[in-house]
Parts: sequence; C-alpha cells; structure tokens
Amino acid sequence: MTRNTITTLFGIKYPIVQAGMVWNSGWKLASTASNSGILGLLGAGSMYPDVLRTHIRKCKAATTNPFGVNVPLLYPNIEEIMKIIVEENVTIVFTSAGNPTTWTRRLKQSGITVVHVVSSVKFAQKAESAGVDAVVAEGFEAGGHNGREETTTMTLVPMVRKTVSIPVIAAGGIATGKSMLAAMVLGADGVQIGSRFVASQESSAHAHFKQAVVDAKEGDTQLTLKELTPVRLLKNKFYEDLMALYKTNPNAAQLQSLLGRARAKRGMFEGDLEEGELEIGQISGLIDSVLPVSEIVAQLVSEFNTAISNVNHFKL
Amino acid sequence: MTRNTITTLFGIKYPIVQAGMVWNSGWKLASTASNSGILGLLGAGSMYPDVLRTHIRKCKAATTNPFGVNVPLLYPNIEEIMKIIVEENVTIVFTSAGNPTTWTRRLKQSGITVVHVVSSVKFAQKAESAGVDAVVAEGFEAGGHNGREETTTMTLVPMVRKTVSIPVIAAGGIATGKSMLAAMVLGADGVQIGSRFVASQESSAHAHFKQAVVDAKEGDTQLTLKELTPVRLLKNKFYEDLMALYKTNPNAAQLQSLLGRARAKRGMFEGDLEEGELEIGQISGLIDSVLPVSEIVAQLVSEFNTAISNVNHFKL
Repeated sequence: MTRNTITTLFGIKYPIVQAGMVWNSGWKLASTASNSGILGLLGAGSMYPDVLRTHIRKCKAATTNPFGVNVPLLYPNIEEIMKIIVEENVTIVFTSAGNPTTWTRRLKQSGITVVHVVSSVKFAQKAESAGVDAVVAEGFEAGGHNGREETTTMTLVPMVRKTVSIPVIAAGGIATGKSMLAAMVLGADGVQIGSRFVASQESSAHAHFKQAVVDAKEGDTQLTLKELTPVRLLKNKFYEDLMALYKTNPNAAQLQSLLGRARAKRGMFEGDLEEGELEIGQISGLIDSVLPVSEIVAQLVSEFNTAISNVNHFKL
Repeated sequence: MTRNTITTLFGIKYPIVQAGMVWNSGWKLASTASNSGILGLLGAGSMYPDVLRTHIRKCKAATTNPFGVNVPLLYPNIEEIMKIIVEENVTIVFTSAGNPTTWTRRLKQSGITVVHVVSSVKFAQKAESAGVDAVVAEGFEAGGHNGREETTTMTLVPMVRKTVSIPVIAAGGIATGKSMLAAMVLGADGVQIGSRFVASQESSAHAHFKQAVVDAKEGDTQLTLKELTPVRLLKNKFYEDLMALYKTNPNAAQLQSLLGRARAKRGMFEGDLEEGELEIGQISGLIDSVLPVSEIVAQLVSEFNTAISNVNHFKL
C-alpha cells in the first residue's frame, strides 16, 4: 500500500471523499464516513448557521477522525458560516459555486485545508492561483449543481491533471471501485462520491428519495435550468412541469418562479417525489441498494483492489 | 498478452477501432489504421454509393488486414449502400443512427460481422436482441451525432456492460492509452477512437480543420441542434449564428434552414472554419498534434501498457 497525496493531505485511510451534499450530508453521514476511513463532509448549503454549528459539534462527538464542511460560496450567510467553521476548529473546507480567491486566503490563515470544486480547466487554474490545496474536478454527469461547459469526468480529469500541479479529486459518475480506478487511471489522486452515499442508511435523505435513487435507470436524470444555475435532476412531475414551461420560451424570472423556494428540501429531505427537486447523478442508474456507509466503503475498496488485479490481463 | 473478445471478433492485433467518421474516414485513414493493427472503418455517411465502392476497393488494395464500413441507417441510399457492401465482400459493418433490426439479419446472412452504435442501455438491449455481434457504447462527450439521453462514457459503459452479454466497445472521450485503460476498467472490451484520428496525417479532414482540433481547448465544443439530431460541434461563427437564432425561439424548420446542406463537408472537408459545421469530441482539448496513424497507435499501446504497470501503485 502506497499512501497517496489525498490520504496524506486529509489524514485519512482511503483516497475517497463523501460529497457534502445539500439535504443529504448531515453529521450522521459525515461522521460514519470518517469512521469508515474516508473523508466525511457536512453539506452547509442546506443548513442555517446555527444548524451547521450543531452538526459540526455532533460530528466531532461521533468521530475522532478528520471531517470537513462543503460551503457553496454564494451562500447568503457566508461570513457567519465561515466564522462558525473557524470557531469550531473545522480543519478541512471544500468550497464550491463561487470565486475561491478571497476565502481561500482567509481560511488558510486559520490553518484550514482548502479544496475547491471546479467544472473546467479555467476554474482549476484560478483555484490553484488562489492557493487551494487541491481541486475537485467534477464532470457533467454529477448530480446537483453543475458547470456550464458540460465537460464530462472522462475528459475533464485528464485535462485538469495536465494543467495544475496540486492534487486532483475526480467527481461525477463514480459509484463503484471500478469507476474509482478508472478515475485514478485518468490522472485523479482520489475521488469524491455523492449519489452512492445518498443511497446509504446514514444519509439524511428521505426514505422515498433513497428508494427513487435505487429505482432510477439510465436516462432518468437530466441537466436543466441552465438559465439559472445548471442542475442535474431526477425526472419527475416537477421536471415535467418545467419541460412544459420551457415550451413557452420562458425568461429566467418565470423559471425561478416555477422553481420557487425549498423545492430541494421538499424533494430530497421531505420525500415529496412529485413536487420536489431531486438532485442526483447519472450514475444513480447503476445503484441498486441502500446500504450502511461502512459496507459501501468496504465494497468500494474491495472492488477497487480486485479491479487492479484484473488490469494485468489487459496488457497488449 | 491475452487475446480479448474484440481482437478475436475482428481478427485484429489491438482492441482499438478507428471510428468511421463523415468527411474524415476515407480509404487512406482506414487502410493505414488496419495496417497498424487496429480496425479501420470507412465512413459511408459522407459518401455517395459509387464513392463508397471506390473507397472499399482502394482500401482493399492498400491493406490485407480486416477493415469495415460505418453506415448510418438513416442514409437515403441505404439499400444501394448495403448492396455494394455485400458485393464488395466487406466483412465488418458498424451501423448507427437507426434501428438495427432489419439490417442486422440481412447482413449476417451474408456472413458479415455487425456492430451497432448505441447511446443508451435501452438501445444496447435492442441491438443485442437484433443479433449484433457487439455494441459501441458512445458517451455524451463524443463528437458528431449523439444520443438524446446525454449519458456520459463514464456512466454508460458500466451500465451497458451490466445489461448485455455481447462485447462492448467504449467510445467518447478516448484519445490516450490512459483513457483507453479507464474505459476497459469500466467494463469495455475495446475502444472506438474518433477525434484523435481526425488529427492524423491520413484522415481526409482539411488541414485547417486538423489544426482547429489541435488548437481546441476544454469547453470549446458543445452539443447542440437537439431539436433536429443532437450533434457535438466545435464552437465557431456558424455555432454563434446558431446561438443567435436560438434566442428567437426557432422551430425545427428554422434551425434546419440555417443548418442548410453540406455544412459538414464545407467545414471538415473543405476547411471553412467560419461557416462550416465542425464535428469533434470534447477530448479535442487534450489533442495537441497531427501525427501519422502508425505513431498514434504506437503511442496508444505504449501508454496503455505503461498505465497498466502504474496501476499496481494504487492498491489500497
């Protein structure tokens, strides 16, 4: 076993990050992930500041291993969120959806390891210039909010790897040990996994949503709402309503009006599969069970090692 | 060295297929590819029947190795094209863009090996039921015409692999030995490579188009014209004109009118980078040279084998 840069950077056993997803990644998921030898992340994007503080404290009580917080930089209460993160001695922050320049410097001054999520080579270069410790290169197939370039994991990872010299964590389309190995063959130092952990016993997703992820087949998700922020959703009644609205050539305000507020909470957290916004990746088509996090991690590692052994048979 | 199912199926040395692309894949490219130990394909989609017959004959004269023809099944002269293929004793046909049911049976009755290109699990199942010998699972990142599901190579390959029992050839986003290995780790038996061979000395692409592929960066292609047939293009003046038209909420007829006829020929074959339609994959952002086919194949194989040796270091 060789310790790679990601395990060294975070002080974890396996080069795997559990994505900090809105409405899915509370203290239970993050702490169990960290206890399983990977990096658990809290998803601050769906937490009021005081809720985040509670989750950080509960996470600390539940694990002595490193964990982190994912913070969308466009968050309205960003100053307060970052203040809490520093006060509570969180040591790892993943930032996304915004410019990493200002916050990277401030967080690193507090001794925090900073990783930024990017969807393009250009943003990876900007993140490296901003001084981040690593980037997550997230492809078009990923669930939830996504980049405008629509660059897939297969093409994004080698291009980001070629461009930056900091560690690269691949995300988007990864749910098995085989796809984890594929991402590392493409040049990633580690992987961030989202959808597979939505369908875990410990995620805070509603049971209905977990079942919807298990039931999803290839072709059941779509990247949409590109006029607002592009987001990959499971196709449901809300999605069909959106498609009907699109036929009328709507402007951004009309799209925003249909989207409304709290749809993501309603769908993923409250389990309203008809009217809710169900953010999930394309790889949901390959996920067919809800399992404990520890079992998911054990399967990932075992399948990853088996895939390595099988690779020698490919030799030309 | 283990002979895999793809090399056995086609009687070739390496499990690599040179894609049969419109305006790029003439007899020179296909025969050199076949002489380099991979499967060369003629692209019938841009050839009148008599032109195809000439290319088949020239290809035969230039190589004693197996080669094939790619035939879009929506081709207007399909009966004549298939008649020529049988008359000229072509032994391998890749079909795409259409229903494989009718033609697979007829071609196989003539002893022809038939492979169908699919963009979804559903189409892969249909192709298997139609009796094809293998499928190409082509992801969203691929250049040219593409599926409506927008499923990427990273997610499509394992899902198709899980569903069908015939050999699976991965396509989309593959231009290096590393991405070839990644595709095979995901479950593919071999790969089909397009964009990398556009930028070869032997492709029939215009020198201006080859240089445009070399110059392309991440984010420079886009899947568009979804109201007609989705196609991935290099962004140029024609693409900008198309985006301007999209702002007016055009119907399919208006899009078709702007597209007109012979734009693909004008761009890729005649080198008009402003008004032409330039079909290429996302992975063009990683291609930085025009090389002889033999050198591209040698690099692919050498990098593939090196990547296999390096994989053991990842073991957890």
